[in-house]
Amino acid sequence: MAHIALPEGLPGISGGFAFRPETAKPMRELAHILLHEPGSLTPGERELIATYVSSQNDCYFCQTSHGAAAAAHLGGGEVVQRVKADFQSAPITPKLKALLAIAGKVQQDGKRVTPEDVALARSQGASDLEIHDTVLIAAAFCMYNRYVDGLGTWQPEDQSMYAEMGQHLAQHGYRRPSIEAP
Amino acid sequence: MAHIALPEGLPGISGGFAFRPETAKPMRELAHILLHEPGSLTPGERELIATYVSSQNDCYFCQTSHGAAAAAHLGGGEVVQRVKADFQSAPITPKLKALLAIAGKVQQDGKRVTPEDVALARSQGASDLEIHDTVLIAAAFCMYNRYVDGLGTWQPEDQSMYAEMGQHLAQHGYRRPSIEAP
Repeated sequence: MAHIALPEGLPGISGGFAFRPETAKPMRELAHILLHEPGSLTPGERELIATYVSSQNDCYFCQTSHGAAAAAHLGGGEVVQRVKADFQSAPITPKLKALLAIAGKVQQDGKRVTPEDVALARSQGASDLEIHDTVLIAAAFCMYNRYVDGLGTWQPEDQSMYAEMGQHLAQHGYRRPSIEAP
Repeated sequence: MAHIALPEGLPGISGGFAFRPETAKPMRELAHILLHEPGSLTPGERELIATYVSSQNDCYFCQTSHGAAAAAHLGGGEVVQRVKADFQSAPITPKLKALLAIAGKVQQDGKRVTPEDVALARSQGASDLEIHDTVLIAAAFCMYNRYVDGLGTWQPEDQSMYAEMGQHLAQHGYRRPSIEAP
């Protein structure tokens, strides 16, 4: 049961968003820009960063929903599981591996990111904007994960719900108020 | 030196905001709603929560700038130092102590918040909205702190700059693009 009286039947972050629409709006907007708007990192790559950070924070709802969005973008969930288990051996580009290493440091503490981590990403072709957005995706998911878990939100285990949510997020992004929205 | 080519001369989060105005906008808006808009917790109380979380995350820029904003709201910096050192013995209300305990759990991991933590806050008069906003302020500063540190931003130690920034933030909030703005 959630720690406060959240509207019933809304999974994970949707419960907090419905409780406080004023703060939901900028939180949705930030996710939309970071994960869904056109960029030089594909939406699938950015969802993998979000999923990996949520996995490191052990947030069930976020790692499952964003993992489903990544799978929808990338045409399957195997790479998602491989990234969560050991991204260095996953079938992804060296650039994305270097960015995931930065994201993993940010998840622990931003001060752990070293000039060497950044130089490695740059040597694999990462731009300053891609490094910036990686840092911010990792930082932002340290917020979303704590918000979802800190409110004690309902986090169902029905995998078909997450698959549907992932398809919706991959197609429409994060500005819409619910997965049931037209 | 910052990890990426941030505009020079802008301290802390201002550097990241100037580099990426698209993401700055919702990040500013969220801080403005949580810390500055009218609410049943005073802006000074909310700045204390932000300062305490930033202190636990060891983010120099954020704990100093929001500490200065709290001091500007509360008429002095002693309570800020007392909250950072040991909030249970600080001259603040029992309700704020219970909310800071929740914020401290969220800073570590949202799953650490217990029904007992929430029941204690409620018994001291905290509303569901105040508990929600405490969780979200703590979660959001886990983002802002990591963003500031993860980019390797310039974090000057000139205390008069922070005092001026604190006065500006206490008066105008977070929507304005810089402390030099009219």
